[in-house]
Amino acid sequence: MPLNPDAVGTTSEPSVSSWTSKDALLYALGIGAGTGDLAFTTENSIGIDQQVLPTMVVTLPEFSGVFGKIGSFNPAMLVHGSQRIELAGPLPVDGEVSTKATITAMYDKGKGAVVEITANSSSVATGEAMFTNVMQAYIRGEGGWGGDRGPSADAAAIPDRAPDHEVTFQTSVDQALLYRLSGDRNPLHSDPQFAALAGFNRPILHGLCTYGFTGRALLATCCDSDPARFAAMEGRFSSPVFPGEALTVRMWDLGDGVTAFRTHGGDDRVVVDQGRCETR
Amino acid sequence: MPLNPDAVGTTSEPSVSSWTSKDALLYALGIGAGTGDLAFTTENSIGIDQQVLPTMVVTLPEFSGVFGKIGSFNPAMLVHGSQRIELAGPLPVDGEVSTKATITAMYDKGKGAVVEITANSSSVATGEAMFTNVMQAYIRGEGGWGGDRGPSADAAAIPDRAPDHEVTFQTSVDQALLYRLSGDRNPLHSDPQFAALAGFNRPILHGLCTYGFTGRALLATCCDSDPARFAAMEGRFSSPVFPGEALTVRMWDLGDGVTAFRTHGGDDRVVVDQGRCETR
Repeated sequence: MPLNPDAVGTTSEPSVSSWTSKDALLYALGIGAGTGDLAFTTENSIGIDQQVLPTMVVTLPEFSGVFGKIGSFNPAMLVHGSQRIELAGPLPVDGEVSTKATITAMYDKGKGAVVEITANSSSVATGEAMFTNVMQAYIRGEGGWGGDRGPSADAAAIPDRAPDHEVTFQTSVDQALLYRLSGDRNPLHSDPQFAALAGFNRPILHGLCTYGFTGRALLATCCDSDPARFAAMEGRFSSPVFPGEALTVRMWDLGDGVTAFRTHGGDDRVVVDQGRCETR
Repeated sequence: MPLNPDAVGTTSEPSVSSWTSKDALLYALGIGAGTGDLAFTTENSIGIDQQVLPTMVVTLPEFSGVFGKIGSFNPAMLVHGSQRIELAGPLPVDGEVSTKATITAMYDKGKGAVVEITANSSSVATGEAMFTNVMQAYIRGEGGWGGDRGPSADAAAIPDRAPDHEVTFQTSVDQALLYRLSGDRNPLHSDPQFAALAGFNRPILHGLCTYGFTGRALLATCCDSDPARFAAMEGRFSSPVFPGEALTVRMWDLGDGVTAFRTHGGDDRVVVDQGRCETR
């Protein structure tokens, strides 16, 4: 069996990564921020201090060490399943973090497997916890070892009523080419020939790019555009998005600073499901 | 008198600058290359070697040393007048150059002054000449010292007939926010408040971004998209461009590998005039 379920609990050696003001500007443009978002897209506008979009934390930790421990599989069969982020506070415009990543779960879904990695990142300068990423990857064809199936999707996660808020953003046909400069150079998102090998008729947008557009909608709607109020966000990737699609984020206020959300593609299909945003 | 015409002939100490594959990708996106230009916008597409857009040479040399020698003036009064580039061959995807910049002319235009800086860049690794930038800046309000007016624009530079080729590219409203990450962070191109202080009702596109879009049209039309054939390009900036305008490049074959060109804005006004492209 190629995957190794006994790897659950394995923790990587801490790895250090850093970012600059320029990285933050590039990330903001990569998830569609623009002239209406000068706090995130410029560093020298009069009377505006540069800020960092909270979802940038998905680009910062280095996972590769622990990723190598989950066993062997065909990387082309891996898709991003879900992502949760938690932030202790607003990100500084530049910084350096030390990250410890742990394989926190491996679920046997029969036709595939889910691997969950939890990465805790703390400031190198102060040692304080800064943010956490919980990433679930779905690996097609790797299930069937008779393991725990894990939790099912929560059918009640999204209220059965009209959304309280709705925001639509347009992605550009070149969106993935720009987003990939924030780190994920997988050619599935840029090379038509590679995408064809993976069964797509053209390159698909990074799930985390869709996630970033979604986070912008949540930040504006639920946090009055103040990153300090953005505490956590999670969602499941339920359909690929193609660069150039419009993304519509529907949001439901659940009270106590919690918002449920779904993100829809240009044809209204759900592309991020089971969404939760927590504010402070 | 604030400008110092005796500074003509002053040469800077060599200054070293470098670029990476990522810088080249970011530059290409900044001048509008996209999914149709994978050789310039990706580094790992199947069967495609990354190449560098020739106009990237405008972003590489460091001018500031010699710039400080031209005298004192209000930087808000400076506009980019013209730019000529010459390339000894195609740019590598990463590299390091040593640049010597010389103040090669200062012209007294009466109501303003033209300052020309010529920057020769050679490979740090081999010492070979790689490219030259000749930049003319126009400084409003700084003329009148009774100096040489310099050459006038050549009215015959553009043939009086229909163009042989025409290419239109769309700029995006966020184009300047992306282009500025290739180095020129002047808030004239990003901050509406700063732009208003300079007399514009919104931020203007970098002249060198328009230049880059124009270079893409020339590369595709005159060089069959082969950077090795792109030997030189020059043009005069004749009108500001606003992010979001379409740019139309009209080209006239003059024979012997020379093409005259003009670039027009969305309302058909000329934004780059007196254009020349030389191919090999």
